[in-house]
Amino acid sequence: MNMLQSFAAPPAGTATGRIALLRAEMSRRGLDGFVVPKREAAPPCEERLAWLLGFTGSMGLAVVTADNAALFVDGRYVLQAREQVADKAIEHCSLTRKCIAAWLGEHLKPGQNLGYDAWAHGVDEADWLGGLCQDMGCRLRPCADNPLDALWHDRPKPPDGEVRAHLLQHAGQASGDKLAQIAGELRAQNLDAAVLDQGDSIAWLLNVRAWDAPHTPLVLSRLIVHADGGLDWFVAGNRLADDVPQHLPDGARILATDDFAEALGRLQNKRVLLDKNSAADAIRLRLQQAGAQLVFGDDPCQLPKACKNEVEQAGARAAHRRDGAALCRFLAWLDTAVAAGEPIDEIAAVRRLEGFRQAGGGLQDISFDTIAGAGPHGAIMHYRVSEASNRRLQAGELFLLDSGGQYLDGTTDVTRTIAVGEPSAEHRRHYSLVLKGHIALAQARFPEGTSGAQLDALARRPLWAAGLDYDHGTGHGVGSFLDVHEGPQRISKAGSGVDLRPGMILSNEPGFYREGEYGIRIESLVLVAPAAAIAGGEQEMLGFETLTLAPFDRRLIDIDLLDANEREFVDDYHARVRTEIAPLLEEDAERVWLEAATRPL
Amino acid sequence: MNMLQSFAAPPAGTATGRIALLRAEMSRRGLDGFVVPKREAAPPCEERLAWLLGFTGSMGLAVVTADNAALFVDGRYVLQAREQVADKAIEHCSLTRKCIAAWLGEHLKPGQNLGYDAWAHGVDEADWLGGLCQDMGCRLRPCADNPLDALWHDRPKPPDGEVRAHLLQHAGQASGDKLAQIAGELRAQNLDAAVLDQGDSIAWLLNVRAWDAPHTPLVLSRLIVHADGGLDWFVAGNRLADDVPQHLPDGARILATDDFAEALGRLQNKRVLLDKNSAADAIRLRLQQAGAQLVFGDDPCQLPKACKNEVEQAGARAAHRRDGAALCRFLAWLDTAVAAGEPIDEIAAVRRLEGFRQAGGGLQDISFDTIAGAGPHGAIMHYRVSEASNRRLQAGELFLLDSGGQYLDGTTDVTRTIAVGEPSAEHRRHYSLVLKGHIALAQARFPEGTSGAQLDALARRPLWAAGLDYDHGTGHGVGSFLDVHEGPQRISKAGSGVDLRPGMILSNEPGFYREGEYGIRIESLVLVAPAAAIAGGEQEMLGFETLTLAPFDRRLIDIDLLDANEREFVDDYHARVRTEIAPLLEEDAERVWLEAATRPL
Repeated sequence: MNMLQSFAAPPAGTATGRIALLRAEMSRRGLDGFVVPKREAAPPCEERLAWLLGFTGSMGLAVVTADNAALFVDGRYVLQAREQVADKAIEHCSLTRKCIAAWLGEHLKPGQNLGYDAWAHGVDEADWLGGLCQDMGCRLRPCADNPLDALWHDRPKPPDGEVRAHLLQHAGQASGDKLAQIAGELRAQNLDAAVLDQGDSIAWLLNVRAWDAPHTPLVLSRLIVHADGGLDWFVAGNRLADDVPQHLPDGARILATDDFAEALGRLQNKRVLLDKNSAADAIRLRLQQAGAQLVFGDDPCQLPKACKNEVEQAGARAAHRRDGAALCRFLAWLDTAVAAGEPIDEIAAVRRLEGFRQAGGGLQDISFDTIAGAGPHGAIMHYRVSEASNRRLQAGELFLLDSGGQYLDGTTDVTRTIAVGEPSAEHRRHYSLVLKGHIALAQARFPEGTSGAQLDALARRPLWAAGLDYDHGTGHGVGSFLDVHEGPQRISKAGSGVDLRPGMILSNEPGFYREGEYGIRIESLVLVAPAAAIAGGEQEMLGFETLTLAPFDRRLIDIDLLDANEREFVDDYHARVRTEIAPLLEEDAERVWLEAATRPL
Repeated sequence: MNMLQSFAAPPAGTATGRIALLRAEMSRRGLDGFVVPKREAAPPCEERLAWLLGFTGSMGLAVVTADNAALFVDGRYVLQAREQVADKAIEHCSLTRKCIAAWLGEHLKPGQNLGYDAWAHGVDEADWLGGLCQDMGCRLRPCADNPLDALWHDRPKPPDGEVRAHLLQHAGQASGDKLAQIAGELRAQNLDAAVLDQGDSIAWLLNVRAWDAPHTPLVLSRLIVHADGGLDWFVAGNRLADDVPQHLPDGARILATDDFAEALGRLQNKRVLLDKNSAADAIRLRLQQAGAQLVFGDDPCQLPKACKNEVEQAGARAAHRRDGAALCRFLAWLDTAVAAGEPIDEIAAVRRLEGFRQAGGGLQDISFDTIAGAGPHGAIMHYRVSEASNRRLQAGELFLLDSGGQYLDGTTDVTRTIAVGEPSAEHRRHYSLVLKGHIALAQARFPEGTSGAQLDALARRPLWAAGLDYDHGTGHGVGSFLDVHEGPQRISKAGSGVDLRPGMILSNEPGFYREGEYGIRIESLVLVAPAAAIAGGEQEMLGFETLTLAPFDRRLIDIDLLDANEREFVDDYHARVRTEIAPLLEEDAERVWLEAATRPL
């Protein structure tokens, strides 16, 4: 079987030449500047930022004017951007609205035109850019076709892979029922229609899947839900597997993607719901032009998609057992190989782990490129090993391994940090502090109406008390055989403010990173569920059920740093891992390893 | 000396008659509805809601139409509103935007006019009401003069008490320096002026104090800060103590309150900063009419006022020692009196506590009406004892005592819950859970950039784990000889999102309430300060310095529920209380009491 992960080194930077081409094109179109964004989970044909500058990070934004250019990236990608885009003519800046505004303020003059591709920016972002331009006396000008596309001769085609039915045995709710629910909500809000522009929302609503973004089975397409229960889906009909049409709800019409603009035009005078964050600004512009009454609100599929039904919850548990067995087999192999002095590098580890996942059956894809960071690579938050960066696992170092699988019954995402040889006292101290935070969050009980932002500090507290912290969120939402990063739920300092509700799946992943030395992260997925009744309690509480099944590395736990309750948590969890995973292992040696790895502290 | 607190029973409801008068006046003015809000810290002349309906809670809103009327109050005041406004013609509703919108939607018809007093509503609230009316096809109509004022014949005068200088020895920063700082910020933001409509911001900026709201030394007036450092203060000149003018910054002009509207008119074409939350909508309307360029943003005094300077911090510590000594003397007296079987009621306790505060010296006022809740009264969150409600302290009950003082060097606010006679096991369990939350927050360390909303769960966690919670915020900001409730900092589920910064003072007040039985709250004020360096720590952390000095009731602590670290916190805190307070006590018996009350657990 072919490897799902590629280890090709990222392309070298090609910035200067292509920027010159873009400037010529801008000048032809009367543009003084142009904005090139990169959003997460985009198909290859949307990788314009990578084509223009050679930057391959998952998020970023470039602005090019006649004389200047800047690349904006967030903290995760500062080092990578400097390596991939070393051209001195390109400024490197932080991907915050403040920095973008400051840069534009410095480099745009009153009266100038800043161009943007209205299909590539959400309404909210375009509104914000438009406001900035207005304040500076400039104009934000939508481009009917992206000027880069005129230059990018070998631009990949849009995704055209097969769209398959996601069967009821995995989806748990028929598409017709989902549609009836959404249409009912539109009527309750006195809306006539909603326009959907999110590939994962459409995949959820119609119970279909394709592979339109890397490792992510969403269907990039567009859809109009009408309050009367009708539905127009704009997708190339020849992409649909034979059984898809019969699988769609009554009232669903399959229309050509080219018909979308015209269909928007027919919404004149209708009250139309549009999600400011996810919908392309081009849709807003077209609806305004058509005279629709726009009502901005959340994508109506987002919340029901986030709250997994019972079939999806059972599927998640099954997928995590399968995935946990693969990871345990890998961990057993790794320990044995390290003990035997076998030379192992990051790529070998990734291949081996993927092999165990494949062997476990049902794997459709990995859910993202495995982050396999040996020693100092563990401190690079979104490290992706390539032939060029590949590093040997060395005794006395830590190995951070963040990976996941896409199964028909669920999406997994798990990080374990492993001691290679003898860990230092500092390794053990920091691992134990991270573990304490992981446990505090796993054990949290909280009332309905609590958001992830309120719980984030529970996971950080042990590190904060030691003068330490980590510079990423504590938990992201996870889809059901869908996007491994899904909203609206999350656990982070800057929260989405969305309440955690039963059925939501999130990651619980505190960490600690020492640049140039090592990285520690402990990540399990958790399911929000009603907590068991508590004697003397007055109200029902919610809590988390941990889905992920793989031992913490006992060699990294300093038990003096855990209190009795925390030790009990680890022992109980390990006993559960042993009970659930042992029957799925294939070799006696693996069972022996699991027994030892999960024995009480 | 006169008592600062009054125990008069609230007036009986007078709703129906006055509503009829208002309806006649509305009809004369062509209004189909009228809105009557009540904001916190308002002077008697603004108590229109109390005059109209007899409701004396600190917040609320009434809407009256030709045929219907509703009173909207929050959870704190549901019971009180039902008692004070028992008229069946008045609906009782929850003070949320959702409920207000629903009620208006039901009772206003398209084409109707809803009147409001633009001086009584903030810009943000008026915007929201205006949007609602627009959606319903109605009009929100500002009234040049409030129709209630035409009916309220014995309406009190606006506050006209003396305005005194708040001396540099307490304020710590000269008014001229504050003005230079604010003006500099306006210039940096390319603004020409800011209009201030907050009595406490003006008191802070000018280093002046009056008693324009009950127990709160703010100066209700209006002020324009110009970016060139000029300042126009609209206040009755005859209110100013002789030394105030010389005390004001250079460039300050004292103008008649009647000149304010004209002065706003002179801001034509200027870029003017206005706080949407605190500024009256009338100011916005006048500025728009004048052709000013409005820029909405935070009141520029809010954040520097919240971050106390070193003189204010030292003042707060001194005020809390004085206040702590008074509270300890009271607690000693109470224990002795209860042990001797003396009959004590809530009013007697309040009088005695106020007497000790007076005797300690320097007391300018209490900082709010003391909440003295014996037994079931403790569960009424904003209970105010009156001759009518007064209750005896009874053995086996809890006594919740929430009080504070206004001193020139600081404002205090402290709650202690006291066992009267022998507490039950349940009392002790719930007290200990609340105490665990109080300790967790008091000990928290957190990085710069952390908001109070992120920390709130630390205080709730022990209760949540037991299936319990409390229905109020965990901490509010506190001024320096100013408002005992000040923004923008706070610790609550729905946070303001404002970072906690060194110098901010907040309350730490988790609680637990069993309706009809008892209330528990443990409140100390804390100062945000850099935490001591931590061995192995990588970044500077912030933490809380507890300012309040009064023992927790040892009889209510179930030490089996505290871990070693929590016991150490209590012992250390008690040792500190003993060291700092013992020298300030007057009687040997008080010192003996303190010794016993603060001995190690």
